[in-house]
Amino acid sequence: MTEVTAAIDSVQGFKVAGVACGLKANGALDFALIVSDRPCTAAGVFTTNQVKAAPVLVDMELLKTNNDHIRAVAVNTRCANACTGAQGIANARQMAQLTADALGVGADEVLVMSTGVIGTQLPMDKIATGVKLGTAALTENSWDDTALGIMTTDTRPKMASVTVTSASGQSYTIAGIAKGAGMIAPNMATMLSFIVTDAAVEPLQAENMLFAAADQTFNRIVVDGDTSTNDTVLLLANGASSVTIDETERDAFMTALTAVAKKLAQDVVRDGEGATKFITLHINGAPDDDAARKIANTIGTSPLVKTAFYGGDPNWGRIVAAAGRAGIDVDPMKMRLWLAADEDSDGLLLFEQGIPTVYDETAAGDLVKAPSVVVTLECGLGSGSTTIWTCDISHDYVSINGHYRT
Amino acid sequence: MTEVTAAIDSVQGFKVAGVACGLKANGALDFALIVSDRPCTAAGVFTTNQVKAAPVLVDMELLKTNNDHIRAVAVNTRCANACTGAQGIANARQMAQLTADALGVGADEVLVMSTGVIGTQLPMDKIATGVKLGTAALTENSWDDTALGIMTTDTRPKMASVTVTSASGQSYTIAGIAKGAGMIAPNMATMLSFIVTDAAVEPLQAENMLFAAADQTFNRIVVDGDTSTNDTVLLLANGASSVTIDETERDAFMTALTAVAKKLAQDVVRDGEGATKFITLHINGAPDDDAARKIANTIGTSPLVKTAFYGGDPNWGRIVAAAGRAGIDVDPMKMRLWLAADEDSDGLLLFEQGIPTVYDETAAGDLVKAPSVVVTLECGLGSGSTTIWTCDISHDYVSINGHYRT
Repeated sequence: MTEVTAAIDSVQGFKVAGVACGLKANGALDFALIVSDRPCTAAGVFTTNQVKAAPVLVDMELLKTNNDHIRAVAVNTRCANACTGAQGIANARQMAQLTADALGVGADEVLVMSTGVIGTQLPMDKIATGVKLGTAALTENSWDDTALGIMTTDTRPKMASVTVTSASGQSYTIAGIAKGAGMIAPNMATMLSFIVTDAAVEPLQAENMLFAAADQTFNRIVVDGDTSTNDTVLLLANGASSVTIDETERDAFMTALTAVAKKLAQDVVRDGEGATKFITLHINGAPDDDAARKIANTIGTSPLVKTAFYGGDPNWGRIVAAAGRAGIDVDPMKMRLWLAADEDSDGLLLFEQGIPTVYDETAAGDLVKAPSVVVTLECGLGSGSTTIWTCDISHDYVSINGHYRT
Repeated sequence: MTEVTAAIDSVQGFKVAGVACGLKANGALDFALIVSDRPCTAAGVFTTNQVKAAPVLVDMELLKTNNDHIRAVAVNTRCANACTGAQGIANARQMAQLTADALGVGADEVLVMSTGVIGTQLPMDKIATGVKLGTAALTENSWDDTALGIMTTDTRPKMASVTVTSASGQSYTIAGIAKGAGMIAPNMATMLSFIVTDAAVEPLQAENMLFAAADQTFNRIVVDGDTSTNDTVLLLANGASSVTIDETERDAFMTALTAVAKKLAQDVVRDGEGATKFITLHINGAPDDDAARKIANTIGTSPLVKTAFYGGDPNWGRIVAAAGRAGIDVDPMKMRLWLAADEDSDGLLLFEQGIPTVYDETAAGDLVKAPSVVVTLECGLGSGSTTIWTCDISHDYVSINGHYRT
């Protein structure tokens, strides 16, 4: 496959649009459409939060009966349509119906998604405007606007694309967009992301591969430890490239899909609310992978660890202490902790045998002050491991969330 | 019993001291001694963190063999003596030995505790100075200095005292001090606290009652969700009042002990690092008490909930969303959420039947902007309930922890 690029040119058979329908007060793009000229197989990974937004409930229901002839996705920002009761469900269905009518397809062929403030009803007049303007604006090349049209507190659009050449020499594309900067926790899909491909994929295969890719990517990121009511990752495959993902193509597709999802997931962390640092956290030598993940998530959500990184302080003590409260029977005498500039650099060993090493404090400080850092904790207990991506907590995180009504 | 007061006059048979031995650069008090003129029964509740500081390990070991003739506790700040290996254990024992020698008691009659930065060895010369100065400064009335002498990022000392009149007409006192402002999580004792009484209490009874009191108080507070390596609550009972806590006195003692512990625990939250608000969180109608606690802790540690309170935003949506990700099978349609000014006020109902009520946004804002607020979430599922106390996350929390090396 090609390198993952941050720009999306076009994906055969898909037209997209991002328009402004008045949801954002400043006139910024706030409504998006993704439309396929032929039926798509579709798979979704949805929030594990017990409080699910209306569009999540509507989409989950729809995908049970239609996972092989989806034609469009409509997305709005500023209003999450969560905690909105029966009216919220009716509005989500109405948003699908409006989109279906404008496109000349069935309402049961349209998925909908919302993001923004919890607890207010969708302003259906503005949604209707969004559908009308969006339909008129559909082109094959409007991915930039589409990625902008799903943003809330994001500071930049998130896009990823790869092209894969199949065994038969034909090529297909996998491309995706994502939004998300807060309420990000490593527990199932933790944001909104829409990934499309012009390859043909069977529904069950699409579901299995999306789930596996999300597990390696979107489920490994954490900004603040909060899991949203609206988290959704959708995969649409329309087959317009004439490449079918069979046994021969499966591994290459899975690799490419995971690469796209990884790029988007990491973009969400890099654009985390107020984030100044991108932190890769490897946990090795845990009793098992599940234990490694618990340790990683405890460290990755620790306010003390995150504020230390913000302050440029190589505070290994807080990392070790967070590992100690993860609910796993760890032993500080067996732990070793390294900091490194990137995946390819030798790490600086800070802690082993229960005590700090004699390390260069300036070198450690420089590693933590850089915009990205790799932390590796070896537990010395078994063969369990995991990797997650997280960010720091800054003054800006507090400013953003002290004054933004999610 | 009397009302709980924030000042401690004296407790029969106890002398205390808080002195400056050079651990804090600014010359502030940084070393404390609590000494009984007769043997005490002693009980401790210690951190559940798997990474335990040397003094925690030393004290846990000592209390196994001596829980009925403890004579003194020595405490230092600025250095947690955690992640310090064999040298740390030796230093903790040496600190006990120095104290024992100065007081003319056995080293196995002295408990030690440290708080401060993880990963540096105790400066034993300064500890020796602290023991010497502290011993010389011991009086019955130096509780203010003692409470000051155990502070780290605390902005004010935390003290509580009650006097109880026994069935026979004799009275006894329970008094305690505490420190703690960060690394506070609701999972066993989450700070340092020393509670003394001049009543006589059997060792097993002391342990049971301290554990039960901590479970209702220290284990119900959360500042940042991080559990320290050094958390300890100690109870010393020297019997100097001639009142023995038998079956007749047990309930009154337990009530008074819990009141002292509750005052100290709440003081820790009120003085939480950067905290501007004191939040009481009641969870009712959960499937069981354990589920109620999981929901409470998830809400109480949610950065989004905490920053909303800081911003004075009655953001019920974030509270409901946090409840939804607590790992309990909750149903938003059955939830009801109230805000109130205090325990005695009628609450303002913000959310029920899956949607917000038509409430007065200004009134809700005023409740959340006040220095303290009571949040009640009724889950509508069963009879499980709990109460925890927490605070907001402010810009100052980030400043304090971005630059303080714990």
